Amino acid sequence: MDFTDARVAVVGLGLMGGSLAAALRAHDACREVIGVARRQSSLAMATTLRMIHRGTTDLREGVAEADLVVLCTPVGDILAKIAEIGPWLKPGCVLLDVGSTKAAICRAMQDLPEGVQPIGGHPMCGKESSGLSMAEPSLYLDKVFVLAPLERTSPEAVALAEALVHAIGARPYFLAPERHDRIVAAISHLPYLLAVTLVLAAERLGQQDDGQQDALLWALAASGFGDTSRVAASSIPMMSDILRTNRAAILDAARTAQAELAGLIERLQEDDIEALLPLLNAARERRRRINR
Amino acid sequence: MDFTDARVAVVGLGLMGGSLAAALRAHDACREVIGVARRQSSLAMATTLRMIHRGTTDLREGVAEADLVVLCTPVGDILAKIAEIGPWLKPGCVLLDVGSTKAAICRAMQDLPEGVQPIGGHPMCGKESSGLSMAEPSLYLDKVFVLAPLERTSPEAVALAEALVHAIGARPYFLAPERHDRIVAAISHLPYLLAVTLVLAAERLGQQDDGQQDALLWALAASGFGDTSRVAASSIPMMSDILRTNRAAILDAARTAQAELAGLIERLQEDDIEALLPLLNAARERRRRINR
Repeated sequence: MDFTDARVAVVGLGLMGGSLAAALRAHDACREVIGVARRQSSLAMATTLRMIHRGTTDLREGVAEADLVVLCTPVGDILAKIAEIGPWLKPGCVLLDVGSTKAAICRAMQDLPEGVQPIGGHPMCGKESSGLSMAEPSLYLDKVFVLAPLERTSPEAVALAEALVHAIGARPYFLAPERHDRIVAAISHLPYLLAVTLVLAAERLGQQDDGQQDALLWALAASGFGDTSRVAASSIPMMSDILRTNRAAILDAARTAQAELAGLIERLQEDDIEALLPLLNAARERRRRINR
Repeated sequence: MDFTDARVAVVGLGLMGGSLAAALRAHDACREVIGVARRQSSLAMATTLRMIHRGTTDLREGVAEADLVVLCTPVGDILAKIAEIGPWLKPGCVLLDVGSTKAAICRAMQDLPEGVQPIGGHPMCGKESSGLSMAEPSLYLDKVFVLAPLERTSPEAVALAEALVHAIGARPYFLAPERHDRIVAAISHLPYLLAVTLVLAAERLGQQDDGQQDALLWALAASGFGDTSRVAASSIPMMSDILRTNRAAILDAARTAQAELAGLIERLQEDDIEALLPLLNAARERRRRINR
């Protein structure tokens, strides 16, 4: 089927879902964009802002006529919806998600009824601020959108998902769920844990004898602190689901960081700044090669 | 003396010195801006870009007529210049610096000849890219500029330094050197160590069996990784001097972070995500209160 003929149901109108719906409508990319949200107010806002053609708070009703359903809620809720949504989908319906971890979701997708065409997805973008009010059609522009089809997924279904990715301006990248999860543990979930570590450590260091925080410490925190700690403001429901569903890979990444930090501290402790320099230089060279 | 009548010598025309000189000239804030640099090419560029009125590679010559000298090199070089510059300064000359740590510098300033008026300084701004080509007069705009006068520093000298801070659009904040160093260890030097930790850990996690890096890992690294690791690209001469001159406070901050990270890992290891939530929430709330 041609993507321009498709009815697309976007389930969950937060930052990711709202931006996805907005991008589809802004480019008139498909026949209809149906929004599904928990709150009537989200549907009203999404309709007013012309992100969706119509909306409903009823999942069953929202997906009934859809040719492609995109689950845009936190991972835990995506898993819950995969478990119930099967019987409500049209035969041949493509079920895509935008969850931040892929192994648990793709495993759950294997149990969907035969007629459903499941495919895991993860757009490599986001903001530290969540919610529909932060949504914008350009969120996915030029971003990598990982696609993880199952063995059972038909080439036509993969093509439809790929067409959606192109329609919102993103670049499809095919990846096995397990490798995806190991990679994002290193490049996305570990940065979160280290940002949290930084904020908690600064708070401990800023604690005065009277138990109050040293206001000056926070007043002086400049762009370096702001950048390094930014993702510590990420949505907690999103992050706790990620920690639950990618725990092994995140533990491995966190322990690797722990070992690297211990190495830096040991050389500092020994006052051996010369021995630190190769590490600092290696980190600098690597960081300069990433232009983001 | 009125700041508009002052001759100001800016020693070191990198990002900080170049931006300082450019801000002074752009606002016609003082009688003359004299640049002192190691390389003739820096002086030529600074003259062409109208950052300085005149320049020299000879420190002695550059500071001879100055009413206010600002040392804008890395901390180690500032310490070396404080040790030699005394006899070359006019009686009553104010000697300010913009080094990233203050205790070692203010200690060294105590040994300056009696006629010199020393005052420590640290503008809370910067970029991860260094060098004169990155300089811009707006670098200091609305930024906090810490001033650390010595007991021997006259009120008139403090007033002149304060006038310079105002002239470049920054906000003066008076702070004792030791407290300054403890605070920047937490909000500036610890972020650097954690950014380095992140890059080194990701590099280890991205290492394949053949010893090569997994190119996909780096291709997928998105804005979260970019923000959290940004300061790992900081100038190594600057950072190694900071590590040398603020080692005790940085060690304390790094060990505090080590303990926080260990706490997060322990709860992950025990699969106790519920116990993690209060920590993640505390970090999120704190981070959201800093708007940078």
